[in-house]
Amino acid sequence: MNYDQIFQTALDALHADGSYRYFAELERRSGRFPKAFHHGLDREVTVWCSNDYLGMGQNKVVLDAMHKALDETGAGAGGTRNISGTNHYHVALEKELAALHGKEAALLFNSGYLSNWVTLGTIAGRLKGCVVLSDELNHASMIEGIRHSRADKQIFRHNDVEDLERRLKALPADVPKIIAFESVYSMDGDIAPIKAFCDLADRYGAMTYLDEVHAVGMYGEQGGGIAEKLGLSDRLTVIEGTLGKGFGVVGGYIAASAPLCDFVRSFGSGFIFSTALPPMIAAGALASVRYLREHSEERAGQQRAVAHLREALNAKNIPHVGNPSHIVPVMVGEAQLCRELSDALLKRFGHYIQPINYPTVPRGTERLRITPGPLHDDGMIDELVEALDVLWQEYQLRRAKAA
Amino acid sequence: MNYDQIFQTALDALHADGSYRYFAELERRSGRFPKAFHHGLDREVTVWCSNDYLGMGQNKVVLDAMHKALDETGAGAGGTRNISGTNHYHVALEKELAALHGKEAALLFNSGYLSNWVTLGTIAGRLKGCVVLSDELNHASMIEGIRHSRADKQIFRHNDVEDLERRLKALPADVPKIIAFESVYSMDGDIAPIKAFCDLADRYGAMTYLDEVHAVGMYGEQGGGIAEKLGLSDRLTVIEGTLGKGFGVVGGYIAASAPLCDFVRSFGSGFIFSTALPPMIAAGALASVRYLREHSEERAGQQRAVAHLREALNAKNIPHVGNPSHIVPVMVGEAQLCRELSDALLKRFGHYIQPINYPTVPRGTERLRITPGPLHDDGMIDELVEALDVLWQEYQLRRAKAA
Repeated sequence: MNYDQIFQTALDALHADGSYRYFAELERRSGRFPKAFHHGLDREVTVWCSNDYLGMGQNKVVLDAMHKALDETGAGAGGTRNISGTNHYHVALEKELAALHGKEAALLFNSGYLSNWVTLGTIAGRLKGCVVLSDELNHASMIEGIRHSRADKQIFRHNDVEDLERRLKALPADVPKIIAFESVYSMDGDIAPIKAFCDLADRYGAMTYLDEVHAVGMYGEQGGGIAEKLGLSDRLTVIEGTLGKGFGVVGGYIAASAPLCDFVRSFGSGFIFSTALPPMIAAGALASVRYLREHSEERAGQQRAVAHLREALNAKNIPHVGNPSHIVPVMVGEAQLCRELSDALLKRFGHYIQPINYPTVPRGTERLRITPGPLHDDGMIDELVEALDVLWQEYQLRRAKAA
Repeated sequence: MNYDQIFQTALDALHADGSYRYFAELERRSGRFPKAFHHGLDREVTVWCSNDYLGMGQNKVVLDAMHKALDETGAGAGGTRNISGTNHYHVALEKELAALHGKEAALLFNSGYLSNWVTLGTIAGRLKGCVVLSDELNHASMIEGIRHSRADKQIFRHNDVEDLERRLKALPADVPKIIAFESVYSMDGDIAPIKAFCDLADRYGAMTYLDEVHAVGMYGEQGGGIAEKLGLSDRLTVIEGTLGKGFGVVGGYIAASAPLCDFVRSFGSGFIFSTALPPMIAAGALASVRYLREHSEERAGQQRAVAHLREALNAKNIPHVGNPSHIVPVMVGEAQLCRELSDALLKRFGHYIQPINYPTVPRGTERLRITPGPLHDDGMIDELVEALDVLWQEYQLRRAKAA
């Protein structure tokens, strides 16, 4: 049996429909972000699609903490959390994250993907008869965690309070339930009706599981996310976040009650059997969380850049999806075209926006997803929009209605 | 419904049977390894259970590379590999890992757990009708990956060539098959009959998937693992390894054919949707892999320490499991006793060996797992064995037969 041939055939199909993924080989240059060096083009480009949303990846406080911890503790953790891998910085970071979200405890994972997958997989899998009510646009890591649990799953319509209530109402009162959803949805930038979902959870005795990975660091007075901004943190059973986007480092976590965190710590295979994050990564994340609890310049700068980009796009009638977040999706709707526009932006204008294709978004909704941050100045934004305008003209793409 | 009460009840059961896990809060001190500062005891202890097997976590070449990359590239990668997260160091590291194992390509993951879970989950899940033949002692991450794939699974007896052949023979020739196994088994330290399994794979048209996480860096002339040592690398379809044990940093990988790696890259959810490892982590791992391809002092030092420990244990008739690897299991067989011995070693003698309990090993096989390395000198080893001897006497534990 020629296995490589089977793999190649599947890859050929991706090539044929334009959804094959080419990774841009970048060289991040600390101090130059959002500029980066593009190895394929051999030139500097402006990055518009990074999830280092606030530029914390080059924040001096973070880098100093990492250099210091690297000198102190070395490169890695040396083991799983249970077997010699728990270091002082992990413990301190978990305390800080619990405080950030006003929870009793927190638990660190090697990635946001793992935190969703392990937590949902463990809780839903081990609570007898558990039913998970999952928003239809939930991230792959939540979907896989629920799938892993083998619990019953009900998919409710995106952000739809009525559909969720109808489903909750139909379930027996004595069945454990989890409502799993996100605050800011990564690809559309819309925000869940968190309060209404919490009200339903109270009424029907459900847990709430909120993924805030595209919000932590960026919303709320201390960067605790949309739940903090709305004063709802205490109403959520689990808040899941990442250290790799707004906080600029890497890793994921949950914040919740002490028994819940201890339960996942004690029974979650993907937690138990993973080498811990390097202590110096925990040190960097700790510095970043502390910094963003005390400083709001980065958040204000991001809001400014987002507003300016939206205005500039409107001025040129380039259609973008309206939403209350920092994510600005410019819809294209076709994989091959999306790639062509991205290529032209990169090669002719030096703007890097990765085309977002299937499976990250449904086919037919391919897009350019722009995430302006505090380090994108008005000049950069204007240059980007001018380049888009040129391409919109050349490709004769649909314009937004003039205001 | 009182969810916290449900979680607490499950945790109480762990407390009751002695398998509740207390994490030791350590502070690794670069340059002092295998010594570390224990925060609970407020003193320095000797660590005997680290998977930083060769002390590469404090190797100057590795630390220098990480400091340099941290200055150059900042803290994090800023995105998934597809969306702005691929940096030059990731690409260079994947090339180096492919070369280490004599394969066309390699693919990086955030952890060894993820590399097993994603690769097996993706390949077995997407090859129609695939059957996975899995060694009964495979690591949790492989088991979960196979479970995730929903492919048919057959569990063969540990390291048993006959049982495996019987099962292969019974399967139709035109069904895709994967033989999944490890080289060095983490908890017993025994080694699989790799050549015999490869012969069977050839005969019955199966792929071979070899987990070498407890061997890479440590075996073979360049640290390519047991497969390299035995000259078998080219006969394995996939070699999976970690950057968090012998190489001293964090992360996992596979090395395989270009189409296979591209297939997992293109279809593996846990790869696609994870923020990439920080470039400076890739830089540290790259330096470590290169160093261990060129230097064998660490490997020789580990072998020396292992031999000395075994001799010292034999001299005191302390029973340990014989095996051809660097893992020295001292069997205890009962969770509560295992914890007591570990506590006494730590508090009275300053030796830290985490008790290994369920679910890491089956109940009834609880053990102290000792992993001596090149930085454990003869004096440290003798002190440890003397402490064990005192405890063996106090607790009147079974002795090995005198030689």
